[in-house]
Amino acid sequence: MNARIFVGDRRVEGVAADDRGLAYGDGLFETLRAYRGEAPWWDAHWARLERGAQRLRLPLPDQDFVRAQADAALEGVDAGVLKLIVTRGSGGRGYAPAEAAEPAWILSAHPLPSALRDGLALRWCDTRLSIQPALAGIKHCNRLEQVLARAEWNDASASDRDADEGLMLDTEDNVVCATAANVFARIDGRWLTPRMDRCGVAGVCRAWVLSELNADESRLSRPQLESAETVFLCNAVRGILPVARLGERAWAPHPQVSVLRGHLAAAAPMFATHE
Amino acid sequence: MNARIFVGDRRVEGVAADDRGLAYGDGLFETLRAYRGEAPWWDAHWARLERGAQRLRLPLPDQDFVRAQADAALEGVDAGVLKLIVTRGSGGRGYAPAEAAEPAWILSAHPLPSALRDGLALRWCDTRLSIQPALAGIKHCNRLEQVLARAEWNDASASDRDADEGLMLDTEDNVVCATAANVFARIDGRWLTPRMDRCGVAGVCRAWVLSELNADESRLSRPQLESAETVFLCNAVRGILPVARLGERAWAPHPQVSVLRGHLAAAAPMFATHE
Repeated sequence: MNARIFVGDRRVEGVAADDRGLAYGDGLFETLRAYRGEAPWWDAHWARLERGAQRLRLPLPDQDFVRAQADAALEGVDAGVLKLIVTRGSGGRGYAPAEAAEPAWILSAHPLPSALRDGLALRWCDTRLSIQPALAGIKHCNRLEQVLARAEWNDASASDRDADEGLMLDTEDNVVCATAANVFARIDGRWLTPRMDRCGVAGVCRAWVLSELNADESRLSRPQLESAETVFLCNAVRGILPVARLGERAWAPHPQVSVLRGHLAAAAPMFATHE
Repeated sequence: MNARIFVGDRRVEGVAADDRGLAYGDGLFETLRAYRGEAPWWDAHWARLERGAQRLRLPLPDQDFVRAQADAALEGVDAGVLKLIVTRGSGGRGYAPAEAAEPAWILSAHPLPSALRDGLALRWCDTRLSIQPALAGIKHCNRLEQVLARAEWNDASASDRDADEGLMLDTEDNVVCATAANVFARIDGRWLTPRMDRCGVAGVCRAWVLSELNADESRLSRPQLESAETVFLCNAVRGILPVARLGERAWAPHPQVSVLRGHLAAAAPMFATHE
């Protein structure tokens, strides 16, 4: 893996064995679509990172310096993914954050993930998302719930091994998101997406879609979602992903989702070349 | 820090930048009291690690090999702490666990933490524990809730900066644990400790105490705890910790807690020399 590792503004050889990201998942991350040597949605990703850092009271490295390093990591990359992890740095034992912690951060460039079929097949995950307003919305590194959920259909023996993504409910039966994407549904002529105030990640692409569709944030039950006129997923790596199936439920392609994809491709050409 | 890092059965120089522990907190840990060059409660810690590994479907390294390395790390250590982290190893991007993941693990020896006063001063944390039966009881590396809770009184400006520990409630107002210890309370002549079925860590010392006191696992409200006849904390590094204060509530030393500490020191002499 092509990774650059830093502590504060110094490039270092490796990750410290006592890094708090490793010990406690005490960090944040961003996964950015890269296009023609840069990350076009940088500003939105950095803004979310700042919201997360404020919530966790985690000091961030200097944005200009990180961005210069990101540009260097993306040199010559026509299409790919840039991952940035920022942790609270080294920390010895014990949960108390050091008062003058210097953040550690890792930049890595990755190929685009393999394309998904056009019209995803979804499944429901058994693993629930717990309700934790203190961590909701931000993209922190405590992701065991997603790991467990994604593992449900990773098995050769899983009957729905060919599912593209899984939808997750919270512990109070509200639809929240897919394991690695946000979800939108058209219900009674309105576009709705789950609120991210109690769990889930408020995605960068979700924010674009919310504004573009003038959608509403809402609690959404499983029956509501299953009876929707159409459903799609979105994230900042893959853009808009129409959904064709959810278990037994099937949806035909929806003209408004095609229009939305066209608008996204116009606003962010990186999404025109993929899917 | 004196750390030994391994992948499977190979000692390696450093932690991989794409380690899933770092990316997602996708790992488990144990913190063992070390005494006269060994970790006397090894078996109980390893058994809990196995329960966690089963829950996360995370492959563990070979116990005998890990233990030999632990003994080497503790050579000449008369009193201290051994920390073991086991992660799912390297993993690229994406939540799906690699099907043939080789675990990464880190052993580190640390000095004993500074002794706490005899008769702890506790506070209530504002940060709640979320309810997630899939992760309850095990000692996984998703610990942001504990980090946030511990940070509440880490500030120079915190009015209760001198508190020794903080008690945490879950999102449904049940008492669960301290940030880094389990809690027991004597109520109406019975010893009670919160169930670990929906959140919290089922501590190794807690298991010893449960059996020794023939205590009951129970839901416990904040008013119940505050009106208890006595309260103590315990963990596998510090043993039994009597509580003298919880906010405004004060407790005199309780003879049964002294007896219990004597029994623990007899059963595990490492706890006789500390506190």
